[in-house]
Amino acid sequence: MATTTRSWWGWGTAEDAVRGSELDALLRRVRELLPDADLTPTTAPAVSDLGLPTPRVAAPRALAPLCSHEPTDRAAHTHGKAFRDVVRNLAGDLRSAPDLVVRPRTEQDIVDVLDWCSRSNIAVIPYGGGSSVVGGTEPRVGDGYTGAISLDLAELGQVLEIDRTSRAARIQAGVLGPALEDQLRPHGLSLRHFPQSFEFSSLGGWLATRAAGHYATLYTHIDDMVESMRVVTPGGVAQSLRVPGSGAGPSPDGLFLGSEGTLGIITEAWMRLQDRPAWRAGASVHFAEQDAAVAATRAIAQSGLHPTNCRLLDPAEALLNTGVHTSGGVLVLGFESADHPVREWMRRAVELCRDHGGDLPAPPRYTEDAESTANENTADNWRAAFLRMPYQRDALAARSMIVETFETACTWDRYPELRAAVSEAASAALASTGATGMLTCRFTHLYPDGPAPYFGIYAAGRRGATLQQWDEIKAAVTEALHTRGGTVTHHHAVGRDHRPWYDRQRPGPFAAALSAAKTGVDPAGVLNPGVLLPGMAP
Amino acid sequence: MATTTRSWWGWGTAEDAVRGSELDALLRRVRELLPDADLTPTTAPAVSDLGLPTPRVAAPRALAPLCSHEPTDRAAHTHGKAFRDVVRNLAGDLRSAPDLVVRPRTEQDIVDVLDWCSRSNIAVIPYGGGSSVVGGTEPRVGDGYTGAISLDLAELGQVLEIDRTSRAARIQAGVLGPALEDQLRPHGLSLRHFPQSFEFSSLGGWLATRAAGHYATLYTHIDDMVESMRVVTPGGVAQSLRVPGSGAGPSPDGLFLGSEGTLGIITEAWMRLQDRPAWRAGASVHFAEQDAAVAATRAIAQSGLHPTNCRLLDPAEALLNTGVHTSGGVLVLGFESADHPVREWMRRAVELCRDHGGDLPAPPRYTEDAESTANENTADNWRAAFLRMPYQRDALAARSMIVETFETACTWDRYPELRAAVSEAASAALASTGATGMLTCRFTHLYPDGPAPYFGIYAAGRRGATLQQWDEIKAAVTEALHTRGGTVTHHHAVGRDHRPWYDRQRPGPFAAALSAAKTGVDPAGVLNPGVLLPGMAP
Repeated sequence: MATTTRSWWGWGTAEDAVRGSELDALLRRVRELLPDADLTPTTAPAVSDLGLPTPRVAAPRALAPLCSHEPTDRAAHTHGKAFRDVVRNLAGDLRSAPDLVVRPRTEQDIVDVLDWCSRSNIAVIPYGGGSSVVGGTEPRVGDGYTGAISLDLAELGQVLEIDRTSRAARIQAGVLGPALEDQLRPHGLSLRHFPQSFEFSSLGGWLATRAAGHYATLYTHIDDMVESMRVVTPGGVAQSLRVPGSGAGPSPDGLFLGSEGTLGIITEAWMRLQDRPAWRAGASVHFAEQDAAVAATRAIAQSGLHPTNCRLLDPAEALLNTGVHTSGGVLVLGFESADHPVREWMRRAVELCRDHGGDLPAPPRYTEDAESTANENTADNWRAAFLRMPYQRDALAARSMIVETFETACTWDRYPELRAAVSEAASAALASTGATGMLTCRFTHLYPDGPAPYFGIYAAGRRGATLQQWDEIKAAVTEALHTRGGTVTHHHAVGRDHRPWYDRQRPGPFAAALSAAKTGVDPAGVLNPGVLLPGMAP
Repeated sequence: MATTTRSWWGWGTAEDAVRGSELDALLRRVRELLPDADLTPTTAPAVSDLGLPTPRVAAPRALAPLCSHEPTDRAAHTHGKAFRDVVRNLAGDLRSAPDLVVRPRTEQDIVDVLDWCSRSNIAVIPYGGGSSVVGGTEPRVGDGYTGAISLDLAELGQVLEIDRTSRAARIQAGVLGPALEDQLRPHGLSLRHFPQSFEFSSLGGWLATRAAGHYATLYTHIDDMVESMRVVTPGGVAQSLRVPGSGAGPSPDGLFLGSEGTLGIITEAWMRLQDRPAWRAGASVHFAEQDAAVAATRAIAQSGLHPTNCRLLDPAEALLNTGVHTSGGVLVLGFESADHPVREWMRRAVELCRDHGGDLPAPPRYTEDAESTANENTADNWRAAFLRMPYQRDALAARSMIVETFETACTWDRYPELRAAVSEAASAALASTGATGMLTCRFTHLYPDGPAPYFGIYAAGRRGATLQQWDEIKAAVTEALHTRGGTVTHHHAVGRDHRPWYDRQRPGPFAAALSAAKTGVDPAGVLNPGVLLPGMAP
């Protein structure tokens, strides 16, 4: 097995960075679309040249073996993996580096670390895979703290127990996607949770941020896969009861899901698993009218067919990602089952598409043999491309391109107006910041009552100014989402970056309740300050 | 339309009480099963003979028009509708009657009532349909309060807005099931939430207690049908954003769902609706072995077929409710769709049953025409019988029978042991209390990782002692649930009666967080004290 090195400044591993013919092809495509783009490359600085601030705190002797103040460790734990994180890393701006990176090996280690930090007024930033795109793992905590540590759960990566009958497993929170699936595969089971960050995000991170996988409907949100959670808070360990459902008061897990490390450190969870699918169906449907494409997608979302994939790409997204020219977009449809053939499900979904003017250039593809690899290869190819996207983003971010996504969810009745408002806001902000580019949209998740639109911005920026350009664009489009009935985030979490809009979206009495609840379990206020709630004033 | 009178002491309306030939048949069945039962009837006392305590508080002049201290009103708002409530009513024990019944007409009325009660240290007991079976609406608040009011939301019963595109409606919380469906029917929509209490429970009550409807899988919990909620707390009005999904922090609705009136008064909600089903399929499957019946049910629960009904009746339940003799039980299967025929779904479910030794005495029944009423009649008959059960319970409770249900949920791996422990505890408690009877079990709801077993006790009690007998039996079986991995309640809520086990089940830090959150929104601690959390000490 080849050794790989995690990139401190960009996505994934240094070895997997875009280079050679992949890079040539990528830049060729950009030049075709944006002939005036300045694609002069920027190289990441050497860690030794970063001039990281001197650590302000030292660990007590008992905890010292868990702690690292190595510059590369600290640099890698400073930012998440958003576009603005990569740009700041490339510019060598790591002013909010943690003082220490701490890697607990046991739950007791975590208890001891929280005790120490609570006593010493040190901010604790929980860190799973480090793939936050909202500043959730960035130790930007203000001046109210003595220091800040990044609490990296990488050593807690085991599947501890499997219940084959109930299809569930007890899993440590620090495990990353591939290591988790490797441990479940021998049992014929899968968590079946595949966010784009899959390779570099952890179970604990998924739970803390209410992550969503790449499936379109039903079991795709991590919230729906949790039986029970174990959370270490400064006020004690919270272990919820492992049951398939309960009506005993407000859900305890519901308070910790999405708490983004502000209430406690998730150490393990009993998770619902699924059998590995044996039957698959896939189809691509082309539309001439965007409204008809949306109506077809809505009909499927309200049909009770529960497709695993139902991804509506707008014409720009379809062109960029699949090379297909349409005036109304492309609907990528999929069904999967571990129990039964899915032809009848696909047949009806296709019928709904045709009722709305959809056209299938090729008949649906079926895999009806668990051993067949034909569709596996198609899926693998798609997955490989999906997983390459963040690497390509890095290559473009290093060449003054503005490449970033943002996402929301809204009810069907609000969607047309929200879509128009986002387009208008993006165009205006691109123009006012002097960037040239385009906005794309796809639906990543579907509910009977509305879609989760996922937007992409691809623009040629001004060398040295892309951070400011993006921040201005992001503020404009987020304001458009907020004022047109969209949530500030459907599955990217709040972190530090979405706080201003989150504060406006959240009901006032709920803010009071959450703030009080935090004080109840984290009286010193050291857990991820500035995320969801304000941190301590100096 | 005939005028009906709500029964102050029992279920539903006085006019619908069991009498005549229905009563004769019921008592005949009981005498067959329990020949030694003492079926001497007890008559409910006259309200004028109850000697209700004198009201301790008087409303401020501005609120007086909303308030009633009529004895019948106060009597009807004293207890919920559990067996123990009916028995206490029949015995004339109404010591915890509310001082006043208050019926707000607007949200501002509720704000004013909460202000008054917070200022005056008066406990506020929210009241929807009054069908709690766990003491949730009983003003049993201890001596720490000046008085207690029952806040009845009956005047807030309108559907305010309908969004046909997203299939959702904004609905006032006080509406009862039939009035709600009457308002949705002209739009071809349904909330499709049918708990057994449907006729006499309200939207706000369903939300506050995390109610479950009679469907087996998927959209049956009220939790999954909420887009957003509006809640009046003493600390302000909480209005959550109306979106199909959101990952912006812990779910605000998640805190209020199941809060049982301890955090605020739910005044309205945007609810997800469904089209009315046009295709239906139904089948009954008989089993010779109970383990095989459970395995078949588990296979269906894990198949991804999502039946609307998948109710496994154990042999005693099957005999009592359908008159069918089996040694392994009966699985009642159903599928429904508003979009497509469901033959393929039923075909596969039946195949799974046959794989586990299930036998179909008759082929599945299909309704494939929205206008057909054949199956509607079957469903109507079943529904009528289901809705009669609480009335029959009252008739038996008045004749010294112990007739009550309790419910839980557990993972599949724990079920056999839990089932055995409950049987053993019930048998021992029946014997030690001198009652003679039986325990039945059915699965009301199914999850891929476990069932929600629903138990019934039918026993001949001792005249004048059935309350004590039941309390002893209930404590024994709840202890068995608690120690064998079951939740204290799957959909009956916690109220005052489940508190001792809920306190043990709930994670300690969550209790601290919830208690702090309550103080954050209800600083005077007047909202439903004693439910979920302790009330004020005197």
